[in-house]
Amino acid sequence: MAVLKVHGSPISTAVMRVVAALYEKGLEFEFVTIDMKAGQHKSEAFLALNPFGQVPAFEDGDLKLFESRAITQYIAHEYASNGTQLICPDSKKMAIMSVWIEVEAHQYDPHAGKLGYELFYKPMFGQTTDPAAVEDLEAKLGKVLDVYEARLTQSKYLGGDCFGLADLHHLPTLHYLLGSSAKKLFDSRPHVSAWVADITARPAWAKVIAMQKS
Amino acid sequence: MAVLKVHGSPISTAVMRVVAALYEKGLEFEFVTIDMKAGQHKSEAFLALNPFGQVPAFEDGDLKLFESRAITQYIAHEYASNGTQLICPDSKKMAIMSVWIEVEAHQYDPHAGKLGYELFYKPMFGQTTDPAAVEDLEAKLGKVLDVYEARLTQSKYLGGDCFGLADLHHLPTLHYLLGSSAKKLFDSRPHVSAWVADITARPAWAKVIAMQKS
Ligand SMILES: N[C@@H](CCC(=O)N[C@@H](CS)C(=O)NCC(=O)O)C(=O)O
Ligand SMILES: N[C@@H](CCC(=O)N[C@@H](CS)C(=O)NCC(=O)O)C(=O)O
Repeated sequence: MAVLKVHGSPISTAVMRVVAALYEKGLEFEFVTIDMKAGQHKSEAFLALNPFGQVPAFEDGDLKLFESRAITQYIAHEYASNGTQLICPDSKKMAIMSVWIEVEAHQYDPHAGKLGYELFYKPMFGQTTDPAAVEDLEAKLGKVLDVYEARLTQSKYLGGDCFGLADLHHLPTLHYLLGSSAKKLFDSRPHVSAWVADITARPAWAKVIAMQKS
Repeated sequence: MAVLKVHGSPISTAVMRVVAALYEKGLEFEFVTIDMKAGQHKSEAFLALNPFGQVPAFEDGDLKLFESRAITQYIAHEYASNGTQLICPDSKKMAIMSVWIEVEAHQYDPHAGKLGYELFYKPMFGQTTDPAAVEDLEAKLGKVLDVYEARLTQSKYLGGDCFGLADLHHLPTLHYLLGSSAKKLFDSRPHVSAWVADITARPAWAKVIAMQKS
């Protein structure tokens, strides 16, 4: 097997998504740190890996990929027999999981990502959080989480009976929001709160957080 | 085979995406019109099909799906042997197509969707287009199309050598933008322009447009 390589910064949500999938699969990989402060993600060498100049980029031998959710899907399919099964072999069950993969990308992430930016990244970079934006985003994310609460009364995980990509894709933004005042949005919904406790307690996720600190 | 059902409005980009996939596959389906002006997409009956209250919703017998890109993926996999092959059987080629499926969703659609809203839907609903927003969105979309131009010098279609889901997902927003002043963004890039001419000339796409007019 060729050495798998992830290029990125360990604090990037999109990078954490890919690393979480690799740890779930128990796959060895090389982490190539991209110095984003120095603009290395806009260098010619990096643009050859991702023409949009964003982290992560990924290599499996000759195969070069970018876009975090395309990378996790590749890992889940190509290494189906390693570690945690992150997709469903049954086509109808997989279709349902795909719905919730798309929900994360199109309903949850637009609000969660912007909220994480306001509440976590802005303070980290010495910028001022905009309280009106936070209020608006919290209201929008709350409505999405109302749908999650109903979904999670029917099924233990978002994508179905087992933990899978649909759940995993939420972990990075979730992590930042749980360390902010937006935590209340999750805590106040019992099924969402149980789901959050379950998926953030996974050993693979603990490794992602440990990697961030190292 | 159960009757396939698409619930939606024929002018919705997300609905057109699903209908395009069904026509490419040569599959028969029932179109259930949702009266969005009357708020039918927020009715209890519709929320049972899509809890986010958005069109499209889709049924294949007992299986109920929403999110346009999850539906097209299901159609492409489940009906792999019908009509046009929209995905790649080879796992590495499929991974590359997945990258460009994600690019449409995360790099192209956010700008193209908002631009289509400013230039097409706002005038249609008697609202005023914001020229500053248009300028900003055209600049952003232009940068994405610069990446497409480079990609399309290497490969005939975005996702690879053959037309597939990565290309198809662009058609609805492309259609509206080609009927607006944003057409210049596509015309001014030769490979993008040839790709646009090719994918919009597909007989299945002509059927989507015909359905809109009927
Ligand atoms: N849709 C992309 C998003 C990647 C992304 O936004 N990466 C951020 C860090 S989390 C980045 O590289 N930002 C720098 C930039 O956009 O210039 C993915 O999922 O991989
Ligand atoms: N990500 C969804 C988007 C669906 C969507 O935005 N549908 C629009 C029409 S194109 C809609 O139903 N809008 C009404 C609303 O959001 O209330 C998909 O791809 O299916």
